[in-house]
Amino acid sequence: MTIDPAISSLLDGWLQAVRASDASAIASHYSPDVVAFDAIQQLQFRGIEAYIAHWQYCMTQCSEPTFEMHELHVESAGDVAFGHYLALCGGTNEKGERGQSWMRASIGLRREQGQWKIAHEHFSAPFDMASGAAIFDAQP
Amino acid sequence: MTIDPAISSLLDGWLQAVRASDASAIASHYSPDVVAFDAIQQLQFRGIEAYIAHWQYCMTQCSEPTFEMHELHVESAGDVAFGHYLALCGGTNEKGERGQSWMRASIGLRREQGQWKIAHEHFSAPFDMASGAAIFDAQP
Repeated sequence: MTIDPAISSLLDGWLQAVRASDASAIASHYSPDVVAFDAIQQLQFRGIEAYIAHWQYCMTQCSEPTFEMHELHVESAGDVAFGHYLALCGGTNEKGERGQSWMRASIGLRREQGQWKIAHEHFSAPFDMASGAAIFDAQP
Repeated sequence: MTIDPAISSLLDGWLQAVRASDASAIASHYSPDVVAFDAIQQLQFRGIEAYIAHWQYCMTQCSEPTFEMHELHVESAGDVAFGHYLALCGGTNEKGERGQSWMRASIGLRREQGQWKIAHEHFSAPFDMASGAAIFDAQP
C-alpha cells in the first residue's frame, strides 16, 4: 500500500530529528494534544510539554542513538491515519555499553490546518510473562 | 470527541468477547490481515490465525479475566480510524493468585465491506530502564 507522500514527509522529518537528538525539531512533528505511551518509565504522557520533557530525559540516558524504521505500514483517509512499524533502536548507555534491540511502534496521525501531525504514539517491548522482564532480543 | 457509533459497537462487541474468553467471537472483530503487537512473548503477530492462536495461549495463562477500557479516544475519517485507551486488566494465574494492572492499548481500524474491523492492535506495559523489568504498578 502506498503511503500518502505528505505522511511520508512527516515521518522522514521526524526520523531525522530523532537521529539528530533535536528536541524542538522532534516536538514540531506532534500535535499539541499528543497522547503518548512510551516504552519506559510511566504509563502515559499527555500533551506535548510532558512528552518532550520525557524525550529530553531519554536523550540523557542514551547517546549516539540509532533508529531504523522497518515494515512501515500507514493507512489514511481524509485527515486521519494510523500506522505501525518495527523500530531497531541502538545507543550507548552511561557505562559506555553499546546495544540495540527491536521495539514496536504504533502511530495515530491527524491533519491539522493542512499539516499532518502525530496525535498518538506508542512504543514498547514485549515482556516475558514468567519473569516479568522486558524482552530485548526478540526478532521480527 | 464523539466516537462513530459503528466503531463503538465494534469495540463493545470485542470487549464482551474478551470478557467471555470466546476466541472465535474475539476473532470476528479483526481484519484477516491484522498486525498485532501484544504485551507478552514475541515482537509481533501477523494475520488472524497467528494472533488468535496467541489469544488462545493467553487464555490458558489467565482465568477469570477482567478487562476495563478507560480514557478511550477514537478518531475516524472515511474508512480509517485510530484509537487508544488504558486497559485495567485482571486475572488469576496458575498459582491462584489474583492480580490486576494497567496496560496501554492502541488500535488502528479499517472499514472493510461496510464493517469496521481492528486492523492493528498494540498492548504493552512500560518497563523500568534500570532493571529491565516491566512496570505493573504504574497508575494513570
